[in-house]
Amino acid sequence: MAGDSSDQRALQYEQTLMYGRYTQELGVYAKEEAARLRESGQRRSVSERSRALDLLEYDKGRCARCRRSGYPYVLEAPAQDFISVCTVRCQKFLISRVGEDWIFLILLGLVMALVSWVMDFCIAICLQAQKWMYGGLDSNVLLQYLAWVTYPVVLITFSAGFTQILAPQAVGSGIPEMKTILRGVVLKEYLTFKTFVAKVIGLTCALGSGMPLGKEGPFVHVASLCAALLSKFMSLFGGIYEEPSLIGIKNESRNIEMLAAACAVGVGCCFAAPIGGVLFSIEVTSTFFAVRNYWRGFFAATFSAFIFRVLAVWNRDEETITALFKTRFRLDFPFDLQELPAFAVIGIASGFGGALFVYLNRLIVQFMRKQKAINKFLMKKRLLYPALVTLLISTLTFPPGFGQFMAGKLTQSETLVTLLDNRTWAKQGIAEEFDYIGHSEAWKHPQVNVFVTLVLFIVMKFWMSALATTMPVPCGAFMPVFVIGAAFGRLVGESMAAWFPDGIHTDGTIYPIVPGGYAVVGAAALSGAVTHTVSTAVIVFELTGQISHILPVMIAVILANAVAQSLQPSLYDSIIRIKKLPYLPELGWGHHEKYNIRVEDIMVRDVRYITLNCCYRDLHNVLLTGNLKTLALVESAESMILLGSIERAQLQSLLSQQLGRPRRLEYIRERAAAEKKRLLVLSNTDNEDGNQRASHEVRFQISTEESSLTPTRPVPQKPLKPALKRTSVVERPTEIPTSPHDNSGIALKNLFCASRDTEGLEDDGDVEDDMTIREIAEWEEMQLDEQVNFNNCKIDPAPFQLVERTSLHKTHTIFSLLGLDHAYVTSIGRLIGVVSLKELRKAIEGSVTVKGVKVRPPLASFRDSGTSSSENEATELHKLWDRHRSMSLPREHTPSESDEKSQ
Amino acid sequence: MAGDSSDQRALQYEQTLMYGRYTQELGVYAKEEAARLRESGQRRSVSERSRALDLLEYDKGRCARCRRSGYPYVLEAPAQDFISVCTVRCQKFLISRVGEDWIFLILLGLVMALVSWVMDFCIAICLQAQKWMYGGLDSNVLLQYLAWVTYPVVLITFSAGFTQILAPQAVGSGIPEMKTILRGVVLKEYLTFKTFVAKVIGLTCALGSGMPLGKEGPFVHVASLCAALLSKFMSLFGGIYEEPSLIGIKNESRNIEMLAAACAVGVGCCFAAPIGGVLFSIEVTSTFFAVRNYWRGFFAATFSAFIFRVLAVWNRDEETITALFKTRFRLDFPFDLQELPAFAVIGIASGFGGALFVYLNRLIVQFMRKQKAINKFLMKKRLLYPALVTLLISTLTFPPGFGQFMAGKLTQSETLVTLLDNRTWAKQGIAEEFDYIGHSEAWKHPQVNVFVTLVLFIVMKFWMSALATTMPVPCGAFMPVFVIGAAFGRLVGESMAAWFPDGIHTDGTIYPIVPGGYAVVGAAALSGAVTHTVSTAVIVFELTGQISHILPVMIAVILANAVAQSLQPSLYDSIIRIKKLPYLPELGWGHHEKYNIRVEDIMVRDVRYITLNCCYRDLHNVLLTGNLKTLALVESAESMILLGSIERAQLQSLLSQQLGRPRRLEYIRERAAAEKKRLLVLSNTDNEDGNQRASHEVRFQISTEESSLTPTRPVPQKPLKPALKRTSVVERPTEIPTSPHDNSGIALKNLFCASRDTEGLEDDGDVEDDMTIREIAEWEEMQLDEQVNFNNCKIDPAPFQLVERTSLHKTHTIFSLLGLDHAYVTSIGRLIGVVSLKELRKAIEGSVTVKGVKVRPPLASFRDSGTSSSENEATELHKLWDRHRSMSLPREHTPSESDEKSQ
Repeated sequence: MAGDSSDQRALQYEQTLMYGRYTQELGVYAKEEAARLRESGQRRSVSERSRALDLLEYDKGRCARCRRSGYPYVLEAPAQDFISVCTVRCQKFLISRVGEDWIFLILLGLVMALVSWVMDFCIAICLQAQKWMYGGLDSNVLLQYLAWVTYPVVLITFSAGFTQILAPQAVGSGIPEMKTILRGVVLKEYLTFKTFVAKVIGLTCALGSGMPLGKEGPFVHVASLCAALLSKFMSLFGGIYEEPSLIGIKNESRNIEMLAAACAVGVGCCFAAPIGGVLFSIEVTSTFFAVRNYWRGFFAATFSAFIFRVLAVWNRDEETITALFKTRFRLDFPFDLQELPAFAVIGIASGFGGALFVYLNRLIVQFMRKQKAINKFLMKKRLLYPALVTLLISTLTFPPGFGQFMAGKLTQSETLVTLLDNRTWAKQGIAEEFDYIGHSEAWKHPQVNVFVTLVLFIVMKFWMSALATTMPVPCGAFMPVFVIGAAFGRLVGESMAAWFPDGIHTDGTIYPIVPGGYAVVGAAALSGAVTHTVSTAVIVFELTGQISHILPVMIAVILANAVAQSLQPSLYDSIIRIKKLPYLPELGWGHHEKYNIRVEDIMVRDVRYITLNCCYRDLHNVLLTGNLKTLALVESAESMILLGSIERAQLQSLLSQQLGRPRRLEYIRERAAAEKKRLLVLSNTDNEDGNQRASHEVRFQISTEESSLTPTRPVPQKPLKPALKRTSVVERPTEIPTSPHDNSGIALKNLFCASRDTEGLEDDGDVEDDMTIREIAEWEEMQLDEQVNFNNCKIDPAPFQLVERTSLHKTHTIFSLLGLDHAYVTSIGRLIGVVSLKELRKAIEGSVTVKGVKVRPPLASFRDSGTSSSENEATELHKLWDRHRSMSLPREHTPSESDEKSQ
Repeated sequence: MAGDSSDQRALQYEQTLMYGRYTQELGVYAKEEAARLRESGQRRSVSERSRALDLLEYDKGRCARCRRSGYPYVLEAPAQDFISVCTVRCQKFLISRVGEDWIFLILLGLVMALVSWVMDFCIAICLQAQKWMYGGLDSNVLLQYLAWVTYPVVLITFSAGFTQILAPQAVGSGIPEMKTILRGVVLKEYLTFKTFVAKVIGLTCALGSGMPLGKEGPFVHVASLCAALLSKFMSLFGGIYEEPSLIGIKNESRNIEMLAAACAVGVGCCFAAPIGGVLFSIEVTSTFFAVRNYWRGFFAATFSAFIFRVLAVWNRDEETITALFKTRFRLDFPFDLQELPAFAVIGIASGFGGALFVYLNRLIVQFMRKQKAINKFLMKKRLLYPALVTLLISTLTFPPGFGQFMAGKLTQSETLVTLLDNRTWAKQGIAEEFDYIGHSEAWKHPQVNVFVTLVLFIVMKFWMSALATTMPVPCGAFMPVFVIGAAFGRLVGESMAAWFPDGIHTDGTIYPIVPGGYAVVGAAALSGAVTHTVSTAVIVFELTGQISHILPVMIAVILANAVAQSLQPSLYDSIIRIKKLPYLPELGWGHHEKYNIRVEDIMVRDVRYITLNCCYRDLHNVLLTGNLKTLALVESAESMILLGSIERAQLQSLLSQQLGRPRRLEYIRERAAAEKKRLLVLSNTDNEDGNQRASHEVRFQISTEESSLTPTRPVPQKPLKPALKRTSVVERPTEIPTSPHDNSGIALKNLFCASRDTEGLEDDGDVEDDMTIREIAEWEEMQLDEQVNFNNCKIDPAPFQLVERTSLHKTHTIFSLLGLDHAYVTSIGRLIGVVSLKELRKAIEGSVTVKGVKVRPPLASFRDSGTSSSENEATELHKLWDRHRSMSLPREHTPSESDEKSQ
């Protein structure tokens, strides 16, 4: 079982780390050790159970297959029994397999719809409570102010504190993390129940405070959490949803598929926008999307949106299922052709605005980080920063204060409803005729006209949103940006309405301008610009329930994207960079020079490798230098023919096994036995038999002990690492056991700690470790000179290979398609270099952005595009050819030199 | 240059084929030869020009890069000149590079919008003409009938004939072909100007006839054609749009991107549905979609849809830009929650209907094929079949005849408009109250009520559409299916309206049922079921301009897809299978046993390989047996370490070079010279000097001749084949030069034909080919025993490799992600098998469908899921290890045997 053996490896890893534990208190260590043992015991039992399940499943699968295809051996000897068993199993198979995908997606949609609805309900109550407090205290402005300000401060502080204590991973949007996870990187603790609780409660409080924060981004994370937990839960009933620790060849891709569907559900049930949800989640989280998984997203998101809206109907909020922010624009003549330039202007301005928002957001974060004094202070008082920010923002929106000029008393959704209203606020530029109904009153001010109110609203909300989204609470930026965009669109629309009071159309019929349509366009454009997506257009249609403005919206969104993408990364990519998550930048639009850079220009030529006939000393040296996760295994240093790659941890275990205490004890025993025998032979006494038996017993004991301790025994259930397995970069950080400046230390340290530490725990009564340090050092030197035996080592026999002339563009495609971490560069089977995500990132950024790390491809200037390839190739092959004939090529330590010469 | 050398290879391929030409008439042969030479000359000149362009471009690119990054060597010696040149070039670079993507997409959108609009205009005129003729002859029913029937028969016959003569590739939908092309397969003649003309004119005539045919599928093809021609056109101005013959590493992916965008444009400008167009084209043509290319599709499709609708406004057809089939359903209460079951019923029924349609369509094609008598007859009179079908269909729709019961006089779009009407036709089940306005009158019949009319319409149109789409004219099936779906929805809607005359809602307010909404749902569901897409939902919203029915539509579409996908392949996949295009079937929903099949179960273990030290005889034998496009190159038969793969054509050229006439002539010359020298030495005369000079001259002449004739000279510009280059399966079918049962024939035949054939053409005055056949045979035997020199051979040094335990699911993903044709299976660098598309297809079909080719994985029954992997691996490595020590492993002919033993 994969879980079993990874457990073993983890155990072993702990053992090699053990001598580092002396810095800890012994009590702490004992506690940890106990917890670890308990946990590993549990995990082993779980994995054993699932192994049993797996075998059962395999049987079931085979049985199902053979039943259908009707192979004769089904009806052999105990045919009757077999058939009855088979029927039961087939039934089980059908229940557990065929239905599960659907059941899973339905459950996911149901749970997420419930979560979304309950959360919305709670948020509405929170916001109502604030209004009620504010309204009840209208006798005293000071009290009113205190109530208005204290309430959000308390909620945000609670949210920040709660999240901080329970699961700091719940902070922020979650989309950047999901993007990274779907890229194949395992982020620790990002998909646990704790995080789920922290995210849901933290988000409810944060949004209940009335701050300009969004629900969408966190909801993508919540849905993914939900999917991960649900698949864990369903694994209790067997079937394909096994332990996440067993994510292997079989389930990894399935999990990714499910997470992708979950992202769609997150957006879908947040806005009741299934199509937009699917598209937005694809655009935001994926680089390459499997159309095969499309239906999953649609199915789950539709179901979720349906339940979400049905709940509203059942709760008597709505008469029937309609859009969240329904608009009532006229259908027959939604807009005039001559209004299109205005829509285009909204698009371009939104593009700049979106880029500015991303920049501002990053600037604030970087400012807080750079100012070390502030940083230090805030690190200590983590809750102070959100409290201060909330205080500032709520003070400014206080309705009797500055808030009166910016519709401060409206909540976010109320604001959006008023902005999308299909009536014109300003006719002839005079706000008097403004037909105030319901919440729209908030935009009216006796002294100031509606344009000033809108401008103030846009400017103030812009920086407020950028600031508020940097708070350490679960929050997104989509909805605030959406509202700002709507306000901007409304501003343009109202201006147009004031400019052309009778509409633009000249054919007699008067079609007045609909500022609400402009608001729709603005909302889609600005949110599209910030997130670098075009599917905000679809979200807008689903949110408003009208698609009549499709062309203006599409034009504005595309223009906004074009402007924003050429200026700044998307908000999510910006956060990924700020958080330093592992990522691969996109190739920009129209950067054709990418086609001219080749792998040979960016690869690292000095590859760390081990040869098939190397000795343990080489292994030791290789492990001490460099810190790559995997090492290349070549046939020999002369041929450099790539045979595969081995994980660092495997090599460490090989080495520690070779130098470990059990082997040394065995050596001591053998030596003692030999000594004894020699003595026996010399003295020739008659108690030969008894002695021999004792020796046998000892041997037996040793062998059992070894098999329970050494992790590199043959573990039959462990499947081979597939060629294209996504690397789990973060999951198991394999550190070097010794510090790099202590070159000969591993052996001695190993000796010291292991002997002192384990002597108390283990009961090795019959053999005493009586070797002196000097003897041990000698023994270890001897051991290090032995040849490595790779027999029981897990080798990935087909690591991904590129050719030196593969273009950067193709490399990027392959890396993102397959989620690679590194790839070896070979030339006719010979290893000549390695390219990792880092090199690729540098190469792309070096030529894409001016600010990025600039790397001049080391050989680009010497390369004569494509003229020398075939000679080069011929040379390489010639070498191989010569080698094959004579086997006398000198050992090449620097393949890069010879390569340069051959060019 | 890739083009240059592929030219060379093609030339060489012709040469090796030459002896097969004696079956042809000599005149024909001479003509062909002349044409070939002319063409290859042209192609060479083109490719030379583009090589020059390429070099220039490289300079430009380098210069642009260095300018931006400001590297010091830019300002060295001839700095001033360099800077001025650089500025000009940068300017050119900016114009040619940065703008081009946009310009291309805008041009594409513009052209397609114009084509679409003009075509719609012509179709409308054609249909009006038919109506005018029919209306003008209302005095005589027989004349009316003749007019009604003759007109479409003539148009369809013309369409079929025109297409057949100009470009038979234009027949049919085009989506299946585009799917195959986007998969990386090059289909000949599918993207030429001829095809474009044939498709556009043929489609206009076919649709103008009023048959139940669609425009969507062909439009995807037309847009792709347009994109291909446009990129050819733009290549005249230099830049990245080079000759399609040069599609190499650099442009291949770009071309694919552009074609994907073109598909979106095709759907987008056909329905004025940009979003739906993008999504539909992705679903229908792609397996994995690069989100990076998303914007291209959106940009081009939006622009195209915009222009398409603006043209309508300018033509005074519309007041402003609105949807094509605008609906006017009420916004506040679009449907009741209790109507949802009815929508679900529509979805499920549409699913069955869609599957039935696909089945019926395939059945008709297969019936026509199987009936050999009919088939033979129709093959001779190709135009008879479409004429007969048209006659049948138009007779049945003749309005005074049977057509009166099925609204026969309405055109397709008129039918759709009436079906989407928001008024109820049948109240209380009585058709009398039906408020007939405009075209809706056609549905009224004095004797029969509207339900019967609708049922008749659905049934008749169903088989008519399935039949009509089998005609050999450019046509799609989307629109007919869409209309049938709308009619079915309308039927359900009218029934509901009759059942609940006052609506279902119980809260006092009367909300009558809107049958038009049901029609929308039905249209989306049935078209979704036939094409296996969910994006028809989006197309429906964009077509009707209303999104209020989003939830019913989504539910119905998803249910319809679930049903249809479990019963039949999509219409396009069905056509792909009928046409036997190369494809890779999708993994079905929830077929989890795929995760249990591994590559080792399906791979071919008997791999054809060549070793590095093989002789030409081995090469010869390998080429005679088997017909794979590429052959594996291994280090030696003992080690089996995979070094790379070589194309079959390369090996053929190697072999023919070795046995070719030039080498033989050289041999004769050398022999003659040696003979002469021997004589000279014997006679000892004094004219030694002159003779030597002559010999030198001859040598010189030989070497030039060789370099101009032998194709395997070093071609420096040819870039290395990338590891993941899409294989062009169809492009160059490399047949075996000799028939397989004639084992020793190649050498002799080569001798015969080459000598007789080329003697007339070449002027080898100075050396006579005086060898007898016996001598030549001896010489060839000698030559065949020489070791192969791979020095100048193009080797793909990193062919794609899998491991034996890679799951089928993963293999499928990798094959479709990377568009692979085959992959080698290695175990620690050793070649143990090969998996090609064929094996993969068999394995998938074998367990997916019962009817498909069933392949029992040969080892599946013996495999104990995952228990023996590590021993196995250890054994393999151990062997390698042993080999390394002793180098004495016996040659393994059957690795499968040893594998089975080790398990």
